[in-house]
Amino acid sequence: MALLDSTAAGSTAGQRFGVGGEIPIVAALAEAPTATELVIGIAPSGGRVPPGWRPVLLEAISRGMRIVSGLHEFLSDDPELAAAAAKADVEIVDVRKNDERDVASRLGLREDRLRLLTIGQDCSVGKMLAAVELTQALVAKGHDAAFLATGQTGIMIEGDGCPIDRVISDFVNGAVEKLVKRKQDHEILVVEGQASITHPRYSAVSLGLLHGAAPHGMILVYEAGRVHHMGMPHEPLPALERVVAAYEHMASFVGGGKVIGVAINSRLMGPSEAAAERRRVSQALGLPACDPIRDGCDELVAAVEALQQARRSVAGATT
Amino acid sequence: MALLDSTAAGSTAGQRFGVGGEIPIVAALAEAPTATELVIGIAPSGGRVPPGWRPVLLEAISRGMRIVSGLHEFLSDDPELAAAAAKADVEIVDVRKNDERDVASRLGLREDRLRLLTIGQDCSVGKMLAAVELTQALVAKGHDAAFLATGQTGIMIEGDGCPIDRVISDFVNGAVEKLVKRKQDHEILVVEGQASITHPRYSAVSLGLLHGAAPHGMILVYEAGRVHHMGMPHEPLPALERVVAAYEHMASFVGGGKVIGVAINSRLMGPSEAAAERRRVSQALGLPACDPIRDGCDELVAAVEALQQARRSVAGATT
Repeated sequence: MALLDSTAAGSTAGQRFGVGGEIPIVAALAEAPTATELVIGIAPSGGRVPPGWRPVLLEAISRGMRIVSGLHEFLSDDPELAAAAAKADVEIVDVRKNDERDVASRLGLREDRLRLLTIGQDCSVGKMLAAVELTQALVAKGHDAAFLATGQTGIMIEGDGCPIDRVISDFVNGAVEKLVKRKQDHEILVVEGQASITHPRYSAVSLGLLHGAAPHGMILVYEAGRVHHMGMPHEPLPALERVVAAYEHMASFVGGGKVIGVAINSRLMGPSEAAAERRRVSQALGLPACDPIRDGCDELVAAVEALQQARRSVAGATT
Repeated sequence: MALLDSTAAGSTAGQRFGVGGEIPIVAALAEAPTATELVIGIAPSGGRVPPGWRPVLLEAISRGMRIVSGLHEFLSDDPELAAAAAKADVEIVDVRKNDERDVASRLGLREDRLRLLTIGQDCSVGKMLAAVELTQALVAKGHDAAFLATGQTGIMIEGDGCPIDRVISDFVNGAVEKLVKRKQDHEILVVEGQASITHPRYSAVSLGLLHGAAPHGMILVYEAGRVHHMGMPHEPLPALERVVAAYEHMASFVGGGKVIGVAINSRLMGPSEAAAERRRVSQALGLPACDPIRDGCDELVAAVEALQQARRSVAGATT
C-alpha cells in the first residue's frame, strides 16, 4: 500500500525504482491509515533496529499492525516491543529466527533434479531478483521450477525458505541441504544466492550455501559499474573472471557445477551503455548474459535447458 | 584428576592415548571423589547432550562441581540443569556461548605481525594440537607467539578465544578478525583452524576463519591413513594437493598467504611407516613436514622463521 521512507517521501515507487508503479512513498505511518502490516525490508550490516525506528514500531503495534521483520535483532525478543505486541494482541514475525541444528549428510540429493544457484561478485547486486525472475521465466516455459529463498526478503516474497545468514555456522551447509531436499518434488530448483565466497565479510555464508546446495549450474550476478564491495570503499571487487574461477574451484568438491550464464544488474546505465556491457561481458566470460529486468531471461532459460538436456543425455548413456 | 569414560575404564590416559601418564580412566564420578570440576570434552555432530549424561551431570552438580561444557546445546539454558545448579550454587560455563554481532572490516590488521593458520583435510585431525605445539615451540625459541583458540577445546586450554562454529554465519569472518586484532600485541599469531574449506559439512566455518584471519602462512594438518571424511564413509577425502590448492586460491582474496609446512598426525602408524609417510608427503607437496608429537616442531618453526624473514625483507625494501 505504501513505502515508508522519510528521505524519499512525496514520490512513488515507480518514479524512484522503476517498479511498483503508483505505490506512494510516505514519511509517516499516519499517511497509510488502512495498512494492516509493517514489513521491515532494510538489511543494515549487523542487523540491528535503527534507534529512530522504535517509535514507528510502537505506533504500528498500537495501531494493531502485524510486524514482519528481517533484522538479525529479533523484535519479538525486545521486552518493550514484545510487551506492546502482547497488549495490542499483535503478531511479531522475525523472519530470520531459526533453530537449525542439522549438519549436512551429502545423502538423499536427487540427481534427476536440476539444482541452480545464483552467485555474485558482491552483496546486493540482484541474486534474489535473478533467481525469482529466472524461476518465473522457466515456469512460463512450462518447466516445474521452484525458487528456494535463503534470505529474509526472499522468504518474505516466497513465504518459505531458510535465513542462512542467521544460522549458526556449523549448520549452514546442513540447513541449505535440508531446504533443497524439502523442495525436490520440483524438477528445477533455483536457489537464491547470498553475498560471495570472495566477500571479505560474508564468505562463510556463501560457501556453506554453495556446498549445501551442490548446484549443477550457477548464474553469476553483478552490478555493472560497481568497483568496491558495498560499504567497504577500501576493498576493490575481484574481477568477474576470478569470481567464476573461485566458485567453480570450490564447487568441484560437491559435484563440479559450472557457471552457465550471467545476470547483469545494469540499473546505473542507459540503454546503449547496458547493451555494450552485455556484449562485453558475454564475450569476456564466454557465457550468455542479460539484464533480467531490461532484457528478460530468455538467454538464461536457454542455458538452463541446455544444461538439463546435457545432464539427461549423460544419465541416459550411463543407465 | 581423572577421565570419565565407561568404555575405557580401568586403564590410564597414558596407556590409552600415549599422553596423560597415570591419569586414571574411570567409569563413574564416584571414583573421582575429590574432583571439583566436570569438563565436557566430547564434540558430537549437532552438539547435543547424550541422553545418558543427564544423570551424571545432575550428580556432579549435586556434588557441587563446576560444569564446563563445549556442547552446542547450552547446559545453562536447560531448565532442569539450571535449576539444580542454582540450588547447589554451582556455576555452569558454556564455552560456545557468544553474542558475536560484528562484521569484518578488513581494517586495522597489523602487517608487522605474522598471522598463521592451521588448516586441514578433515575435522579432528590435529589442527588445534599443531597450533598449540607450534606456538610452544616458537616461544621456546624466544619468539613472542600466541595461540588463538577458535574451538571449544582450544578455549578450555587457553582460557580465551572465540567459538567460531557457534557464531551466526553472517558474523564468523568478523568474530575471527576481532579475535586477531585483540591479540596483535603479540608478534606471531597462531590461529587454530577448524574443519576444512573442502569439508561437505563445515566449509562455511572454515572459509570464514580463513578470510577473517587473513593468514600470511598456513600449516596443513592431516591424519595419515584416513581416507574418508570422519563420520561420512560415503565421502572420500580430497587429495592433500587439492586441499592446498583450494586454500591458497581462497586466501588470494585476503592477501595471498601460502601453505608453508605440513603437520602429520601419524598416530595410526609405527615409527618406520611414519618416517616413510613424512618423506613421501614432504616430497609430494614440496614442503617441510613432521608429526608434532613424534618429531617435534623444529621444521615448522624454521618455516615460520623463514616466512617472517622474507616478509621483513620485503617490508624493509618498500619502506
